[in-house]
Amino acid sequence: MKKIILVALLCCASAQMISAQSSTEKNKTMNVLRHVVMFKFVDKATPADIKKIEEAFRALPSKINLIKDFEWGVNNSPEKLNQGLTHCFFLTFSSEKDRDAYLIHPAHKAFTDIAGPSIDKVTVLDYWMHK
Amino acid sequence: MKKIILVALLCCASAQMISAQSSTEKNKTMNVLRHVVMFKFVDKATPADIKKIEEAFRALPSKINLIKDFEWGVNNSPEKLNQGLTHCFFLTFSSEKDRDAYLIHPAHKAFTDIAGPSIDKVTVLDYWMHK
Repeated sequence: MKKIILVALLCCASAQMISAQSSTEKNKTMNVLRHVVMFKFVDKATPADIKKIEEAFRALPSKINLIKDFEWGVNNSPEKLNQGLTHCFFLTFSSEKDRDAYLIHPAHKAFTDIAGPSIDKVTVLDYWMHK
Repeated sequence: MKKIILVALLCCASAQMISAQSSTEKNKTMNVLRHVVMFKFVDKATPADIKKIEEAFRALPSKINLIKDFEWGVNNSPEKLNQGLTHCFFLTFSSEKDRDAYLIHPAHKAFTDIAGPSIDKVTVLDYWMHK
């Protein structure tokens, strides 16, 4: 009987640990600051220039651990309301302090030096996530 | 002994069910189409007009089940690169077909009728999520 209780306790403990992880993920959404960056490239930017910028941006989360989440993609809206912007990079921070520190981070500065000459227009909006 | 095995099997099965849920969540990210909508309001739009539009947009997921995820927020970027856009609404679809059906959905059309007179500029980018 003791063995049954022990096995049950161990299994339930592991189930609870997994459940606790999901709960932590949920709590994180309470503290989510989005940073939406959109680019229009200059006409003379080559596919190679653009690929280099995509890869440089994608490398930032590995260099700046203030970035809590990162995703990106290329516009495919049929609405033609993208104002020439073709690329969207969508970053998540946990605080305005982290976002501000990212903006002046040397790795971010180095990225803007790489991207700058190929960029015609940048649009940036940040927002605290509401549902 | 049989009881021990039974309890262990039951507990492990429940742990696996929880784990499988996380796995399903992960797989969903493979099929994520983002729809980023940003507004600049006309100067004469009152706080009440803007609040009405926020609430009308927030009501759309309850009316259009093609919307898989929804969040929104008000710009607080210190970079002043928001091109006058103040509000960001961030929707997720599972396919371009669903996104296209949303665009012509009667509830979406009704929303644009409400919002239209208060909107000076709209910027929209859609993208398949890449990490």
